[in-house]
Amino acid sequence: MNRRHFSRLLLAAAGGVAFPRRARSITRPQVRVNGSRLNRLFEQLRRVGRTPAGGVERLAYSEEDRQARETVMGWMREAGLDVRIDEAANIIARRAGSDPDLPPLLAGSHIDSVPDGGAYDGNVGALGALEAAWTLADEGIVTRHPLEIVIFQNEEGGLYGSEAMAGRLTEADLDQVSQSGRTVREGIAFLGGTPDRIRNAARRSGEIGAYLELHIEQGGMLEAEGMDIGVVEGIVGIEWWDVTVEGFANHAGTTPMDGRRDALLAAARFVEAVNDIVTGIPGRQVGTVGQIAAYPGAPNVIPGRVTASLELRDLDAERIQTLFRRIRAEANAIGERTGTTFTFVSRGLDIAPALTDQRVQGAIVGAARELSLSFRLMPSGAGHDAQSLAALAPIGMIFIPSAGGVSHSPREHSDPEDLVNGANVLVNGLLGLDGMVG
Amino acid sequence: MNRRHFSRLLLAAAGGVAFPRRARSITRPQVRVNGSRLNRLFEQLRRVGRTPAGGVERLAYSEEDRQARETVMGWMREAGLDVRIDEAANIIARRAGSDPDLPPLLAGSHIDSVPDGGAYDGNVGALGALEAAWTLADEGIVTRHPLEIVIFQNEEGGLYGSEAMAGRLTEADLDQVSQSGRTVREGIAFLGGTPDRIRNAARRSGEIGAYLELHIEQGGMLEAEGMDIGVVEGIVGIEWWDVTVEGFANHAGTTPMDGRRDALLAAARFVEAVNDIVTGIPGRQVGTVGQIAAYPGAPNVIPGRVTASLELRDLDAERIQTLFRRIRAEANAIGERTGTTFTFVSRGLDIAPALTDQRVQGAIVGAARELSLSFRLMPSGAGHDAQSLAALAPIGMIFIPSAGGVSHSPREHSDPEDLVNGANVLVNGLLGLDGMVG
Repeated sequence: MNRRHFSRLLLAAAGGVAFPRRARSITRPQVRVNGSRLNRLFEQLRRVGRTPAGGVERLAYSEEDRQARETVMGWMREAGLDVRIDEAANIIARRAGSDPDLPPLLAGSHIDSVPDGGAYDGNVGALGALEAAWTLADEGIVTRHPLEIVIFQNEEGGLYGSEAMAGRLTEADLDQVSQSGRTVREGIAFLGGTPDRIRNAARRSGEIGAYLELHIEQGGMLEAEGMDIGVVEGIVGIEWWDVTVEGFANHAGTTPMDGRRDALLAAARFVEAVNDIVTGIPGRQVGTVGQIAAYPGAPNVIPGRVTASLELRDLDAERIQTLFRRIRAEANAIGERTGTTFTFVSRGLDIAPALTDQRVQGAIVGAARELSLSFRLMPSGAGHDAQSLAALAPIGMIFIPSAGGVSHSPREHSDPEDLVNGANVLVNGLLGLDGMVG
Repeated sequence: MNRRHFSRLLLAAAGGVAFPRRARSITRPQVRVNGSRLNRLFEQLRRVGRTPAGGVERLAYSEEDRQARETVMGWMREAGLDVRIDEAANIIARRAGSDPDLPPLLAGSHIDSVPDGGAYDGNVGALGALEAAWTLADEGIVTRHPLEIVIFQNEEGGLYGSEAMAGRLTEADLDQVSQSGRTVREGIAFLGGTPDRIRNAARRSGEIGAYLELHIEQGGMLEAEGMDIGVVEGIVGIEWWDVTVEGFANHAGTTPMDGRRDALLAAARFVEAVNDIVTGIPGRQVGTVGQIAAYPGAPNVIPGRVTASLELRDLDAERIQTLFRRIRAEANAIGERTGTTFTFVSRGLDIAPALTDQRVQGAIVGAARELSLSFRLMPSGAGHDAQSLAALAPIGMIFIPSAGGVSHSPREHSDPEDLVNGANVLVNGLLGLDGMVG
């Protein structure tokens, strides 16, 4: 696989997966964003939908969402960008390039939030992209490619805006009821889109030069290793299964220990087996049992049935299947030993891994090196709009550290300096891509 | 402990815990119940509150309960017994003895049921006791002690009738709302009791010669071993704990396996530890985790908190505490290894073991031997009215096999022959006690 080969080259060049901070390169002039403006915009935006705990609740299609979008569009116009809302209600702010034949380079993220969310998720990348374009305007730099700063709508509800751009939103998707209480269709209209003509929001493969997204890590790896920047190798694929363990419910007083078919004892061994199998091979795959219920569920009844969830994530879809086959085989062995039966039903989530592009990775690495920032290659364990765009264009993602790895919480935090680092890598990465891609 | 010494003697005599069927004894004349009458009464009684699935729903204080009691009281009078309802609404049918100075021997059980229950639980012992008295009348046998056949009210709701006889029912107990919708106080009045004078239903220690209860096993041990009769060594004590495991909830995609404090993984090891510790020493103690919940409970979130139940039962209260201390120590060790903390809170159930009396056990064993029935010593894992009576008098219990160990279900079943065997052991056991006890 080419991606792997390229990663190996990068690793070989740096002597390991983590790249040390190194002496400043002087091979080409760098651009630096206006860090005080970026952090000022960030502080202003976090007031829209601010929660008592200091987080942000800005559900897609809510009044807070609409208000935040108006605020950002005002800044976009101030930065000299040509702002429009596409049929899917994504905000697209364009800056012309010097070569009208080249496709646009896109950068962006989202500004909607989960319930009781944080101020950083999405916002950092949205404002970082705006600041990148604003900086180019300040510096009078005209790129070859047109530049489009995109604020995707309703990322948290399920990547609705970016899926519309990928041409994959169905009528059934439009009928889903969002956290705001509005259907997606109603919400898109509320935000200024035209859901009846949503197909027109779709781009075709090749129409976009590249897509670059800055985001907080949402994990604790960069902070733990003291790294400035994460160069995302890809967004992991995700599979979900419903697991059912059937034993035999019986009286907990009258049924001797050796006469039991205890579904919860079998499920306990299963939870351990998932952990053992997932950690038993090298790699950064993860496996989680997050839900469990035992029936009938009384202290004095041996559980006859247990339901649980199983989630597996990895950058390699085949590895997910390999892990699943091992887990299922071990579950069946546990079933034989405990007089229970396991069944697994896929929930049909079927999120394929979305690998980032080698050239885009290279542009990010190049920018981090020029800026003397330390960086490491890493997967994104969480989903992002970038994975929708991967169907259309080369993608890349830049991560900055999240304090304590906390996300989707009022306790989300990244340092102002990290916001500036991320935006600097973004703008210089875009400049690098401007010279590298078609 | 004397009980243990006696059990050892019995074991030594038989070469093991299970006693083989042996040649019929001819050392004294036996009484045999009228088996066809017993099974006819049983079939008639099961029609009262019969469910479509063939079980019985006869909730305490319901119309079905009242109707079944009327039916049984009619039969009691037909058998020549002197029937009264005590202040707690227990039915007491008396047969005079030859010695007016001796306290009565009691035999009985209950005829109320759980929701969607079976036809056997309680009914077998209630009708077996009636049949025992009727047989003595038929045979013209006058015992030295008076005989009292007792139908305790509301056993399934919490041994209310027998607890009243033990003098332990409180005003708060009378205010409990039963499954029928009536409070216990209202229900007792509905059944003909006088709740305002319920203290008068209490007997004092020494006022009862002995209490003997026939019951279905509600477990599968006798059936599995092909035994006719269980000689109950005691009713197990029960303790319940609420167990809480605290870890740290986090994103299942962005948190690497080695950075997790997964409360469900810790709880899984706890469930296994309970099983290992309870089965790790000889004996018939049981331990059960019947309830479990993980929070926040989503497939893509590592559980930060798990709640579970822990139940331990044994005939020896000290052994329950020893097992609990080992389980708690192992849980703390699991907590240290997984970055989680375990807390245990007793639910205050605090049901003490109720041991059966050696002489009563001896009378049952003697009766089974005379009848050439195979038998084994065993604990009762379920609760019974006998445990309330243990505070007042020597108690004993006789078990007959339950098909498949099923109980509290329409699928409850015991063979007609087993009903007859049980009643025969009961009547001969009573005759044995009549000669043995003061």
